[in-house]
Amino acid sequence: MDRAKRIEHLRAIMQEKQLDAAIIFNFENQFYFSGLRAITYSRPIIMVVETDQHSLIIPKLEEKHAREKTDADHIHVYHEVAGNDGGSTDYHELFDEVLSGFETGSRVGVESGSLPLDFGRSMEKRGLECVDIQKDVARMRAIKSDAEIELIRKSGELVSGALKHTIENSSAGKSELEIDYHGNQYLFDMVSERYSDSTLDFFVMSPSGVERTNMPHIFSNTRKLEKGDVIIHSRQVGLNGYRAECERTYFVGQPTEAQEKAFKVMLEAHLAALDFIKPGVTAQEVNEAALAVIRSEGYESSVSHRTGHGIGIGQHEEPSLRFDNDLVLEPGMVFCVEPGIYIPDIGGFRHSDTVVLTEDGADIITDYPRDLESLIVGE
Amino acid sequence: MDRAKRIEHLRAIMQEKQLDAAIIFNFENQFYFSGLRAITYSRPIIMVVETDQHSLIIPKLEEKHAREKTDADHIHVYHEVAGNDGGSTDYHELFDEVLSGFETGSRVGVESGSLPLDFGRSMEKRGLECVDIQKDVARMRAIKSDAEIELIRKSGELVSGALKHTIENSSAGKSELEIDYHGNQYLFDMVSERYSDSTLDFFVMSPSGVERTNMPHIFSNTRKLEKGDVIIHSRQVGLNGYRAECERTYFVGQPTEAQEKAFKVMLEAHLAALDFIKPGVTAQEVNEAALAVIRSEGYESSVSHRTGHGIGIGQHEEPSLRFDNDLVLEPGMVFCVEPGIYIPDIGGFRHSDTVVLTEDGADIITDYPRDLESLIVGE
Repeated sequence: MDRAKRIEHLRAIMQEKQLDAAIIFNFENQFYFSGLRAITYSRPIIMVVETDQHSLIIPKLEEKHAREKTDADHIHVYHEVAGNDGGSTDYHELFDEVLSGFETGSRVGVESGSLPLDFGRSMEKRGLECVDIQKDVARMRAIKSDAEIELIRKSGELVSGALKHTIENSSAGKSELEIDYHGNQYLFDMVSERYSDSTLDFFVMSPSGVERTNMPHIFSNTRKLEKGDVIIHSRQVGLNGYRAECERTYFVGQPTEAQEKAFKVMLEAHLAALDFIKPGVTAQEVNEAALAVIRSEGYESSVSHRTGHGIGIGQHEEPSLRFDNDLVLEPGMVFCVEPGIYIPDIGGFRHSDTVVLTEDGADIITDYPRDLESLIVGE
Repeated sequence: MDRAKRIEHLRAIMQEKQLDAAIIFNFENQFYFSGLRAITYSRPIIMVVETDQHSLIIPKLEEKHAREKTDADHIHVYHEVAGNDGGSTDYHELFDEVLSGFETGSRVGVESGSLPLDFGRSMEKRGLECVDIQKDVARMRAIKSDAEIELIRKSGELVSGALKHTIENSSAGKSELEIDYHGNQYLFDMVSERYSDSTLDFFVMSPSGVERTNMPHIFSNTRKLEKGDVIIHSRQVGLNGYRAECERTYFVGQPTEAQEKAFKVMLEAHLAALDFIKPGVTAQEVNEAALAVIRSEGYESSVSHRTGHGIGIGQHEEPSLRFDNDLVLEPGMVFCVEPGIYIPDIGGFRHSDTVVLTEDGADIITDYPRDLESLIVGE
């Protein structure tokens, strides 16, 4: 999927920054440039892009996988069985061998927020200069291709359907994990039925009750829903590695007056940001579109996170819809818009929808009612 | 869960290595020492352990979570809303503030395989000496407490039950994702029913067919099972963050003669290692116990990975059951024993069971038949 193009783009950045090579260690970036995604990186994988070739350092048990998925010019394999093929059993050794091909003083691009210190030190020991390129790669990833957007749109349909199944099967007495499961079942069925040769990732959490909805990021647990609960059901789905997100705040039975008020402010902020986001505006303006509503209703001190974030290969990726980001938005960017309000003794309130920016504006690709009346389930 | 004790243990290591502090960045180690586990680390969390206090640098949206889960003496919060509480909006700035409390020349422990280069550079800029402690922490984590082992045993029951549900619901025409789902359903039901206030993690993959079983680590996809398929069903379950693993190789209908032969060699190697593993032997001897069987049958060139690995908070953790590890095994260690054979045009073959080392020997805590006859399912 456009991988040769992406590597060419990276090489243009290398040329501009006068780099002889780039080390890609971040696993999302590796997937972006190589197509290889491992189920675990407990055995490190390293991608090395030079001006005329690119290579991978991989554990033996990923060799076949890497040969199938990537177009790497060289695959350097490290082994776990002594004497097999006479190859190295130490990835640091292989990395050092690759580095030995670079002249002292060479400038090499690295992701300084992902490359571990020990790899950086190996480079510095060889007299190589590490130059940070992580923002450049993040900027590349921020503008999605048509093929990427097509996958994200499909994930948007899937995540909306899964969310619907969880919300509509929620009732007092079921645990957070049990309601999550209804949506999961839908996902496994739909993906198996509709998409051949495809992988499915998903993330789900459903903090319930006043205490737990005040924590924006916690794992679902076995707490059972109770009459009167507020719930923030949050889902991401990734079809073949490309994600979309949908979240709804809902209630088991009637909310209190204070909950209803906070919900409506959140909803108004959410709709304001969804209405505002489009190419040509800045990330901070989108953030402010939501925050202005919240501020005017007196809830600003109950805001603990930005209005939203980019999404794609990563759960959260650039650009951030944050107060200090003056980036101008462009067609091809994809965002989760999700202003939240969190009030001790009352509850947490957040909806999230995924939007794709187009030449003409913004398409909301996730779909489930947002209004309070639709988000009260049987007790 | 023993967290104060663990921090005391870390401080003893710090004293031995003459360290003034330790920076814990690896998220598994953070959970081990602090009890805090985030659903994502796209907003970094940093733990700083000094001789008389320990602190956390966390994003605002984890503040309540961190105050509930941890005993940190100080929580330094970074914000995403300008002007909220007048606090910093930049975690690098907070990290640098913490570092400013250390004298130039101080020795500070780091996990050099986890700490990103940019954090390491901030430390070096302040004249601090980074000393690698990741092996020391890995060694601590390798010996589990009774409370940790109790959770792992429960995960062992859960993962065995889930594996059984997937295998016994497998048949030609169902996709890998669909068969995974049967076991997932069991997990959500059982955990919700049996364990209050608990979280559930799981990993599952079911590569099927000759081609895909030759790749030890790939995501399940929508490929449909066919008559004659070999499948490696692999599962991990983590109850409240502590994992166990169980894997079985099985067949839809009768295997070929070549498959039956390879399966039997794998099974013999698996049983040999399970029989051999105990306190007092070395990791490399366990590796060799399996490999000797495989070698004597002429399959050594079909081995692409070690015989097994430690498990606990991590999917894979130390100690590694690898040819070059002369560590003597001790009671309290927990291993996945999983020798594998991968043969192009024939298939991949691997069982995995989790074992807890005790004073008396080894308890296998996962449970499902291993013999060929039990692992042929209806077509």
